[in-house]
Amino acid sequence: MTAATLDAYDSLLDRYERATYIGDAAGVLSWDQEVMMPEGGTPARSKQTAALSGARHDILTSDAFEADLEAAEASDLDDEQAAVVREIRREFDRAAKVPKELVERISEETSNALPVWEEAKAEDDWATFAPQVETLLELKREYATHIDPDADTYEVLFADYEPWLDLSTAETVLEQLRDALIPLIDDVNASDADLATPFDGEYPDDDQFALAESTLDYLGYPDDHGRLDTAPHPFSSGTQFDARVTTRFDTDDPVGAIGSIVHEFGHATYTLGLPQDEYGTPLGQNRGLTVHESQSRLWENHVGRSEPFLSSYVDAVNDDLGTTVSGRELYEAANQVYPENLIRVEADELTYHMHIILRFEIERDLLSGDLDVADVPEAWNAKMEEYLGVTPATDAEGCLQDIHWAHGSFGYFPTYSLGSVLAAQLFEAAESDIDGLDAQLAAGEFDALHEWLTDEIHQHGARYTTNDLVRKATGEAFSADAFIDYATEKFTALYGL
Amino acid sequence: MTAATLDAYDSLLDRYERATYIGDAAGVLSWDQEVMMPEGGTPARSKQTAALSGARHDILTSDAFEADLEAAEASDLDDEQAAVVREIRREFDRAAKVPKELVERISEETSNALPVWEEAKAEDDWATFAPQVETLLELKREYATHIDPDADTYEVLFADYEPWLDLSTAETVLEQLRDALIPLIDDVNASDADLATPFDGEYPDDDQFALAESTLDYLGYPDDHGRLDTAPHPFSSGTQFDARVTTRFDTDDPVGAIGSIVHEFGHATYTLGLPQDEYGTPLGQNRGLTVHESQSRLWENHVGRSEPFLSSYVDAVNDDLGTTVSGRELYEAANQVYPENLIRVEADELTYHMHIILRFEIERDLLSGDLDVADVPEAWNAKMEEYLGVTPATDAEGCLQDIHWAHGSFGYFPTYSLGSVLAAQLFEAAESDIDGLDAQLAAGEFDALHEWLTDEIHQHGARYTTNDLVRKATGEAFSADAFIDYATEKFTALYGL
Repeated sequence: MTAATLDAYDSLLDRYERATYIGDAAGVLSWDQEVMMPEGGTPARSKQTAALSGARHDILTSDAFEADLEAAEASDLDDEQAAVVREIRREFDRAAKVPKELVERISEETSNALPVWEEAKAEDDWATFAPQVETLLELKREYATHIDPDADTYEVLFADYEPWLDLSTAETVLEQLRDALIPLIDDVNASDADLATPFDGEYPDDDQFALAESTLDYLGYPDDHGRLDTAPHPFSSGTQFDARVTTRFDTDDPVGAIGSIVHEFGHATYTLGLPQDEYGTPLGQNRGLTVHESQSRLWENHVGRSEPFLSSYVDAVNDDLGTTVSGRELYEAANQVYPENLIRVEADELTYHMHIILRFEIERDLLSGDLDVADVPEAWNAKMEEYLGVTPATDAEGCLQDIHWAHGSFGYFPTYSLGSVLAAQLFEAAESDIDGLDAQLAAGEFDALHEWLTDEIHQHGARYTTNDLVRKATGEAFSADAFIDYATEKFTALYGL
Repeated sequence: MTAATLDAYDSLLDRYERATYIGDAAGVLSWDQEVMMPEGGTPARSKQTAALSGARHDILTSDAFEADLEAAEASDLDDEQAAVVREIRREFDRAAKVPKELVERISEETSNALPVWEEAKAEDDWATFAPQVETLLELKREYATHIDPDADTYEVLFADYEPWLDLSTAETVLEQLRDALIPLIDDVNASDADLATPFDGEYPDDDQFALAESTLDYLGYPDDHGRLDTAPHPFSSGTQFDARVTTRFDTDDPVGAIGSIVHEFGHATYTLGLPQDEYGTPLGQNRGLTVHESQSRLWENHVGRSEPFLSSYVDAVNDDLGTTVSGRELYEAANQVYPENLIRVEADELTYHMHIILRFEIERDLLSGDLDVADVPEAWNAKMEEYLGVTPATDAEGCLQDIHWAHGSFGYFPTYSLGSVLAAQLFEAAESDIDGLDAQLAAGEFDALHEWLTDEIHQHGARYTTNDLVRKATGEAFSADAFIDYATEKFTALYGL
C-alpha cells in the first residue's frame, strides 16, 4: 500500500468514525427519549435527532468521502482493511442515494411518531396512530425507491437490518417455521400435560426490579459499563463502553420479566464484546440484527429457559420475590406454550414465530399498497385468529403493541425469527465445543460460554458477512434445522407428545 | 427586503438552527454523562461529544454560512432580524477563527477530564487532576489566541460566557463587592447575634429528595417539561421544551439543599420562558450567563431566602422532613453568614463573592502563567485565609470543589457575581412594578413574578444586548448598587448591626 492510498484509507476511516460517533450520539438521545425525557420535550428532541441524522448523512455522502472510498478501494488492502472498505462502501451506496432532506424528515417524523403511538396505545385507538403510519410508510417507500427503484420495497428495507442475508432466506425460514411449528403447536394444544404455574400472586415492581438487578449480576453484566432502567418497550442500546438495558414488569408475570431481562442482557453482552479499540469502525460494530438477535435469544432461550440454568438461578428468584419455587417448576413455568397469548414479547418459543409471520405479511401488504393503513386492525385480528386461534379484544393488545412502526422500522421483524433460528444453531455449536456446558450453566458459571461467544462472534464486529460468520462459528451455512430439532425435542418432552 | 436577501436570511437561519440543534444534542449527552452514564462509558462519550462539536463548528464556519451571513447583513433588516444577525455574526466570528481540530480537542479533553476530576476530588489529590488542568489551560490559551491574538486571554474567554458586558465591568463590580462586603462580613463576625439553627438532626436523602420535589411543585415547575435528578455538582440544562434540574444532599444540611434546588429552578424557569416558536434561533436562546445567573439568584436569594416566602414554604419543609420549624427560624437559618464555610455553592449571600474573587484571581494568574498549576492548592488556601480567615484542610474542600475547570470553563466564575448583582437590580424593579409582591410570596403565589420575569427577560431571548435588556427592564444601566443596598440592609437587620 503506498503512502497516498494509506492516507486515503486513514482519512476514510477518520470520516467514517465521525459519522459513527454522531450516530451513537443519536442513540443516546433516543435512549433518553424513551427512558428519561419528559413528554413536553418532543418538539426539540425531534429537531435534534433530525440534525444529527443530517450531519451524519453529510459526512457519509460528501465528495471527499467518496473520493477517499474510491482511492482506498483501488489500493492494496489486507483482509481486515478490505472488510472495512466493503462495509463502508455498502453504507455509502445506501446513504448517497437518499436525499438529506428525506433522511432528516424520516428522523423527525419517527421522533414525532413515538408519543403519538404511546398515546394511541394508552387510549387503545389505532386511528390516532394511523396518520403517522401512513406518513412513515410513504417516506420509507420513497427512501426505498431512492436506493433501488427496481427492487421490491420490502427487500430494500429489510436489507437495512440484515444486509447480508437475502429476503428469500428469510422467507424460506419463515415457511419452514410455519410448516414445522403449526403441527407442533396443535399437538401441544391437544396434549393434556399440566405444566407448573407456581406464580399465582402479585409481585411488586420493586421486587421485580431487584430480581432484574440480581439477574444481570448473576449473568455477569458489568455495572461500570451499563445500567438498568424501566421503559414501556424493553430495549438495549449503546456501545462497547456503555451498553444499557431496559425492562418492564407485569405485576402477575415475573416469568415474563425474567425472560425479558435475560434477552436484553444478551444484546448488551454482544455490544460489550465488540472490540473497544475498534470503536467507530466497522470492526467495532455489530454484524446486523440477525446476529444481534441471535445473541439475545441464545441467552433468553437456550440459557435462560433451560433446565440446568433455572435449577440454580431459581434461588435468586425465590430470594427476591419471596417465593419457594423449585427449579423444575420454574422450568415448566418458563416454557409453557400459550397460543392464547396476544403479545409478541411475552410469547413462548413456538408461537413467537407466528407473531413474526403475521407482522411480516402485514408489512409487505402495507408497503405494496395491498392493505390500507385503516384496515390494519382487521387484518391483524384475522391473522391472529388464523395462526393462533385467538382474536385480540383491543388494538392495544393487537396492532398497537409494538414500537417498531413508530420508529419507521418496516422490514425489521423477520430478523427476530432469523435471530432465534441462528441462536439454536450457535448454541448447538457451543455445546459441542464446550465440555460440560450444561453443568456450568447449572453451577451459574458462564465464563466459557462468554468466551466462546466473544471468540466466535463478538470480537469480529462486522468483519465477516453474516453467512461467513455463521460458517466460521458452526462449520455450516445459516439454517433453521438446529432450531426446529431443538424445539421439537424440547416441547415433545415437556408436553409428553 | 428583496427575495434574494430574504432567501439568504432564511438560509442563514436554517443553517444556524441546525447548529443549535446539534449543540443542544451535545447538551443532552453532557447531562447524561453527569447524571446517568456508567463510568466506563467515558471513552465513547468523549468521541461522541467531540464529533458533535466538530459538526456544529463545520456548519457555523462553512463558506456557505459566511456567504449567507454577509448577504443577510447587506439587506434591509427589521429590528428583530438585525438582532438575529448580530448574534449570529458574533458566533461566526468566534467560531471561524478557531480550527476545528482545536474545537474537537477541547471537547474531547473536557469529556476526559470529568472523571479525572471526580476521582481527584474523591481521593483529595490535586496532583491527579493537575495534568488535565494544564492541558485544558494550554488549549484554552490557544483558543483565545486564535480569536484575538492581541487581547488579554482572560478577557477573550470571559466573553464566551458574557458577550455583552466588558471584563472591566466585572472587575469594577468585584472591586465594589470587595469594598462593601468585607467590612460588612467583619461586622457580622463581630456581632453577638444568635441566629436560629433549628436543623440539628440527620435528614435522609429520600426525605430531602421529596422536599426538593415539593419545592419544585410549590414554585410551579412543570413536570412535563423537566425532571429532577441528583448529581455530584447540581446544574440545570436543556431547552424551552425540556429544562432539567439536578441537586444533591448533605444529610445534615437541608437548608443548603433547599437553596440549591430553588437556584436550579430559577435557571430552569428562565430556559422554559424562552419562546418555543423561536427554538433554534438567537431569539429562542438565553442572553448569556450573567442574565441566566440573575434568574437563579433572584429565585434563590430574593425569593427563597426572603422572610415572606419562607413563612409559608416552611410548611412543606416540616411536612417532608418531619420538623417543627417556624418561618422565622427557617429565615434565620437560611441567612446565616458563615465565613468559615469552605464551599462556594453552600456560601451565604455575602461571603459568596469572596469565593468568586478568589477564583477570578487564580484563573487570571493561571492563564497569564503567573501561577503554576501545581501551586494552585497553596494559592487557594492563602486567599481563603486572606479573604475569609479560614484554610481548607483538604483540596477536595478547596481547589477541587468546582466542576468548572474540568469543563475547561476558565473565565466563567465572574458571571456568578454579576448575576447575583443583577438579581438584586431586577428584583428591586419587580417589587416596584408588582403591587403586594411580598404578600404574594407569603401566600405562595408566584404568577405575577413569573409573568414579570417572562415579559421583561425570558421572552426576549438574546434579542437585546445585556445592558439594553437591563435598561429595558429596570430603567437603569447594569449596576451593583441595588445588591449592595439590599445586602447591607438585610444583614444589618438580621445581625443587629
